[in-house]
Amino acid sequence: MAAPIVTLATDFGAGSGYPAQMKGVLLRLLPEVRLVDLSHEIPAYDVLAGALLLEACVRWFPEHAVHVAVVDPGVGTARRALAVSDASGRRLVGPDNGLLTAFLAGARVHAIEPGRAVPAPASATFHGRDLFAPAAAHLAGGGDLEALGPPVADPVRLAWPGARRRGRELAGTTLAADPFGNLLTSVGTADLEGQPVVSASLDGRPLRWVRTFAEGEPGELVAYLGSGGRVEVAVREGSAAAALGGARGHEVRVVLAPR
Amino acid sequence: MAAPIVTLATDFGAGSGYPAQMKGVLLRLLPEVRLVDLSHEIPAYDVLAGALLLEACVRWFPEHAVHVAVVDPGVGTARRALAVSDASGRRLVGPDNGLLTAFLAGARVHAIEPGRAVPAPASATFHGRDLFAPAAAHLAGGGDLEALGPPVADPVRLAWPGARRRGRELAGTTLAADPFGNLLTSVGTADLEGQPVVSASLDGRPLRWVRTFAEGEPGELVAYLGSGGRVEVAVREGSAAAALGGARGHEVRVVLAPR
Amino acid sequence: MAAPIVTLATDFGAGSGYPAQMKGVLLRLLPEVRLVDLSHEIPAYDVLAGALLLEACVRWFPEHAVHVAVVDPGVGTARRALAVSDASGRRLVGPDNGLLTAFLAGARVHAIEPGRAVPAPASATFHGRDLFAPAAAHLAGGGDLEALGPPVADPVRLAWPGARRRGRELAGTTLAADPFGNLLTSVGTADLEGQPVVSASLDGRPLRWVRTFAEGEPGELVAYLGSGGRVEVAVREGSAAAALGGARGHEVRVVLAPR
Repeated sequence: MAAPIVTLATDFGAGSGYPAQMKGVLLRLLPEVRLVDLSHEIPAYDVLAGALLLEACVRWFPEHAVHVAVVDPGVGTARRALAVSDASGRRLVGPDNGLLTAFLAGARVHAIEPGRAVPAPASATFHGRDLFAPAAAHLAGGGDLEALGPPVADPVRLAWPGARRRGRELAGTTLAADPFGNLLTSVGTADLEGQPVVSASLDGRPLRWVRTFAEGEPGELVAYLGSGGRVEVAVREGSAAAALGGARGHEVRVVLAPR
Repeated sequence: MAAPIVTLATDFGAGSGYPAQMKGVLLRLLPEVRLVDLSHEIPAYDVLAGALLLEACVRWFPEHAVHVAVVDPGVGTARRALAVSDASGRRLVGPDNGLLTAFLAGARVHAIEPGRAVPAPASATFHGRDLFAPAAAHLAGGGDLEALGPPVADPVRLAWPGARRRGRELAGTTLAADPFGNLLTSVGTADLEGQPVVSASLDGRPLRWVRTFAEGEPGELVAYLGSGGRVEVAVREGSAAAALGGARGHEVRVVLAPR
Repeated sequence: MAAPIVTLATDFGAGSGYPAQMKGVLLRLLPEVRLVDLSHEIPAYDVLAGALLLEACVRWFPEHAVHVAVVDPGVGTARRALAVSDASGRRLVGPDNGLLTAFLAGARVHAIEPGRAVPAPASATFHGRDLFAPAAAHLAGGGDLEALGPPVADPVRLAWPGARRRGRELAGTTLAADPFGNLLTSVGTADLEGQPVVSASLDGRPLRWVRTFAEGEPGELVAYLGSGGRVEVAVREGSAAAALGGARGHEVRVVLAPR
């Protein structure tokens, strides 16, 4: 059997020592576990940015990996803790605040209740270490979702950003920037249904549609199918986020060729 | 036997290439070693910040892990290099500048002298790679502390920050901020001796005492028992360090309930 | 046999999720692979900085490691993808834009052509995940260089910075800063041919030559043989890059003792 894998995605900062404490706990509970960081630089308390990061990363890992996600402004309050097995059997643990939205369709969802498969957390402020890491070790070591707590029928879901369609036009919005300043949009590759794009615009200004950002002229805003399954907006060797004065909330339109 | 574990804590920057060179050396000397980063973002040359990071992280790892710590403004000078086995048998290596203070009580401490179990360093400026990584590989691979060099009776200790007690009042100071801007203080959880807190203050201003920072109002400074064994001061979804114009040196007072 | 090792060096940002996606692919293709980050903080699109990082780090790893390097402003264009086995048998994969310059002398170089040992990339913008990671898994798993594609006789090489020699004087330039602000120069340790240095200067101003930066006075610019095989310029507990208003392009001169 392949060694267990646990990935970690948090807003803690890689250098804060908090991800390291989670790893220490995981190695204690599951000595053979292999640990991979998805990111610890999710913007603090930004649940949507965390949800997008998970959507982009999780699918590339072996199915037996368990993913711990912690962007958790409500830690220590009554918000529930969740363990999820999605429609493809991928398992994630994290707070019940929408962070796991991308994996909830068709998923089995259970609450993580201390005192069952995992003990009561030692702190009220660091459930990443004291609750979610032990729950991930439980699952990655072969434990059942059911052993963690009762089923949850109504997990919190983000109003997940999508695209609105009107005839051949898809309208959406920019959601977040990657470290290059390239913008992810709410228009998904699937929304294009394989049709070629004839034109695109951002906040009403035309955008050139290209295959890769490297085809842009210096300073030119371009749009293309990004590697993460979303239409992206970028400036070649520059930052679209900086050029536009912010990453979120710009209106994007894409017009498809007639069938 | 569980695979050897070596953790790394430095002020090098994760992206500098220096931690990677240490890992290359460790993998050459001990191919089965498992490597975990505690942090490479300790503020440059900040020995106290490094010492606090180690205090917070090391205890969560399996006891057989070896911890390499390098915040070393005196590299290449006559400062000694140390290998420590603390009172619980946890092993650490690092420069003799106070970085290992939290682990010195009741510890066995030996100098790392090149030419014994580890060869002379190839550089005068990178003992993390050339001296401490080989020493850690020696220990993690089952080697003795004694083989590295002679015992050291007087390792450098930081004036370790604590709390002063007067009746039911504990007085201390803020020491450092985490990446959220939450402040660690010199008042330890143990100092409270299990007594409830009736009031707290920072620089003479009242602080609300809560169970977790999520109980604060937006913008409100709150204090609570942090996850690392210290009283912390925070602003919900904000930065206490920014609100106070700096992380270090604010006076904190905590008043305990009468017994 | 030792477990396969793959290292990753990119300009993606460790927290971007892109390195994590590469790791997911690597773990799928080669479950026993050990993953080590060299850096994900290479300045965006800075091929020279990436080439210097690889030069500094790769040699410290076990010879069987495979190194994936991605600083790739031309991704998705006609630029070739390379797999290299250098004169010592060290293997690297990356774009054909000079990033691998330090390893090309005496190397076997092959193009990575999709449809041979690795499939066609799923995206036009993320060859790190879709092309280079699978190629690295192929090599680290024991696959041949030749299976990836045809030999390449003319890989792109950077005008690799060196030192000019005139009598006992070596002249070079500063190339990049590490996170401390210490400057790497184009004067290599080998250029000194073991001769002591009698004087050094930067932009015509004298520099004190020391064994380690810790010998400098606060604020004083010093020069020394760095740990990476290059003469470095530093300020003790300060940033030479900040003191000089930039890391690249300062003229450095070193005068050797007569033989």
